[in-house]
Amino acid sequence: MYKQRLFTPGPTPVPEEVLLELARPMFHHRTPEYRAMLEQVTSDLQYVLGTTQDVYTITGSGSAAMEAAVSNVVAPGETVIVVCGGKFGQRWSEIGKAFGAKVVDLDVPWGAAATADQIAEVLKANPLAVAVYITQCETSTATLADVEAIGKAVAETAALLVVDGISSIGAVPYKMDAWGVDITVTGSQKALMLPPGLAFIACSEKAWRKIDATEPRAYYVDLKAYRTALAKGFDNPYTPANVMVRAAVKALSMIRDEGLEAVWARCHWLAEALRAGAGALGLELLSQSPSDSVTALKVPDGIDGEQLPKVLVSDYGVRCAGGQAHLKGKIVRFTTMGYTDAWDILAAIGALEMALAKLGHKVEFGAGVAAAQKVLAAG
Amino acid sequence: MYKQRLFTPGPTPVPEEVLLELARPMFHHRTPEYRAMLEQVTSDLQYVLGTTQDVYTITGSGSAAMEAAVSNVVAPGETVIVVCGGKFGQRWSEIGKAFGAKVVDLDVPWGAAATADQIAEVLKANPLAVAVYITQCETSTATLADVEAIGKAVAETAALLVVDGISSIGAVPYKMDAWGVDITVTGSQKALMLPPGLAFIACSEKAWRKIDATEPRAYYVDLKAYRTALAKGFDNPYTPANVMVRAAVKALSMIRDEGLEAVWARCHWLAEALRAGAGALGLELLSQSPSDSVTALKVPDGIDGEQLPKVLVSDYGVRCAGGQAHLKGKIVRFTTMGYTDAWDILAAIGALEMALAKLGHKVEFGAGVAAAQKVLAAG
Repeated sequence: MYKQRLFTPGPTPVPEEVLLELARPMFHHRTPEYRAMLEQVTSDLQYVLGTTQDVYTITGSGSAAMEAAVSNVVAPGETVIVVCGGKFGQRWSEIGKAFGAKVVDLDVPWGAAATADQIAEVLKANPLAVAVYITQCETSTATLADVEAIGKAVAETAALLVVDGISSIGAVPYKMDAWGVDITVTGSQKALMLPPGLAFIACSEKAWRKIDATEPRAYYVDLKAYRTALAKGFDNPYTPANVMVRAAVKALSMIRDEGLEAVWARCHWLAEALRAGAGALGLELLSQSPSDSVTALKVPDGIDGEQLPKVLVSDYGVRCAGGQAHLKGKIVRFTTMGYTDAWDILAAIGALEMALAKLGHKVEFGAGVAAAQKVLAAG
Repeated sequence: MYKQRLFTPGPTPVPEEVLLELARPMFHHRTPEYRAMLEQVTSDLQYVLGTTQDVYTITGSGSAAMEAAVSNVVAPGETVIVVCGGKFGQRWSEIGKAFGAKVVDLDVPWGAAATADQIAEVLKANPLAVAVYITQCETSTATLADVEAIGKAVAETAALLVVDGISSIGAVPYKMDAWGVDITVTGSQKALMLPPGLAFIACSEKAWRKIDATEPRAYYVDLKAYRTALAKGFDNPYTPANVMVRAAVKALSMIRDEGLEAVWARCHWLAEALRAGAGALGLELLSQSPSDSVTALKVPDGIDGEQLPKVLVSDYGVRCAGGQAHLKGKIVRFTTMGYTDAWDILAAIGALEMALAKLGHKVEFGAGVAAAQKVLAAG
């Protein structure tokens, strides 16, 4: 018997106390009790996003909030710039096209992050661009963008900076207001220690000016409806996933209690340990700019990269994610965000050693674990 | 101490066994385990909707599926007919307008149902109409439409019949295929005994022909993406609320076990008991075509209609809903759908007697309860 351990970069493990909130009796959402929950969640998300702007809670996947960041913002025929270095950058591009934007893709190799200079250059070449869409952590490659530097470059222009922080916010530093981000999107099932089902979005004043000047092509994700409902007294425009909001109160209180900077430090510490352990086993990182929220490891030559995640889960209870698109069979990905601790990392590295050995890789048992533990012991 | 009893027409009470499914450990959705759950849910929903078409599971409120039934179906400038006899009919109208349709509102008094003849007449006057949008149970007035008769009228034309069955399907008879419905929309938090957070949609072949011929103004609710993902092996296009799908397996298995016709009969029996009990207290029904899923009772003259629901919940633990829009303070609404049994109805009528008496209404204690019990005893 192995316990089942979840290392997929979303959904991530959910603390038992949060799960139990889901199981409490059903209640109605047009009540003072629910409004107090939504007020608390809104305030806690402001803390997590680093913003004084209201944060709206949408019942849906992160992609619903991504759509809101396009369909409320961009009129058909307007130009937007999208950083495409993986599956989720491509998603911005797809949504832009679906809503009639002229999408300028800034393609970067999968595993690389676009620099602020590259973005400044594309903005110069496209002076009419109304927005730049980026992904803080490109989950498909475990690559972190320098949002702060990009924020400075975009702030000098009329364009908005829109950040998908779905698999990074709450795991790595993020400061929406200080960094000049105009729209932030995130989701429940990553660093926020909740199941999938809620998406969150916040807009700067600059973003609101553009939204107010744009005819929305949205109803369910019409941001003006969310603004009105929240202002009316912490209401949602449509029936919300109220048990998820109740669970979010609990999960976010855990982040508040630990302290956001301590959470970031923990994710960094765990990611460093994971990277050290994997390195000691001879596994290279895919990313040139690795995120602390998720790590992508290249499968060594001669090892069946589609078998590796299967053996990890079936033989050792360790569920990681494989690669997507052309990275299928080439990488394995492990999250270190959310409800993950040091001993989870040792389990991951221990299982990786055993699965690699089983698949024919030369492994010195304990080498990876020891390397990870050295990092963990250093604190 | 009073136990808290939920009679709002959504969310409705959720069985403990279903709630406990939400609290089980988090898991990944790109796995055979999840695919088996979605396959089961899809099949069970086909049974509940009365269709051989695939039923798609959207992470979102019912309104997200309503939007899908517009943004995938209607091109800008096309004419649609909407039956408006309450808040949810109006929602169809709002969504139609948000996506650029020419909306012909068929207004009926709140509490009345549009007849098939009325709809046939409006279709005759608008021969280019591409769709008729109706609400099976208009929750705001607790009024049931005759979908079967309307289905016959619409089937004679080129228009599609789109039905919002959010607060009716699983509580009252519904037969999508047999009645010629082209698009059915429903949600998790009503008769299906789940929390809010999932929406469901199914389309006839006639509907798919229109969808395939129409440029969608949708990404998150792009029905073609749902069709492709399901066909690929019971997948969702975006990260689904997987714990809700796990809970849906349980809730729908309870409906299967009881049998859909037995569930319909139970809801009818409970609604009859509630109506009899309220009638014995001198409370009139708002609706001329009362639904068995929710009952709207007129607040008697001289009683403060905004106080009544407040006293019911604060003094007696019975949470009903008041009226919306111009019915605010004029009605109270009690659900009889989903996880509700005979003794819940006695509690509701008992609390109604006590709250009305407290607010100054002349009440013969037990009269309402006895009348309800007579119906319940008759079985």
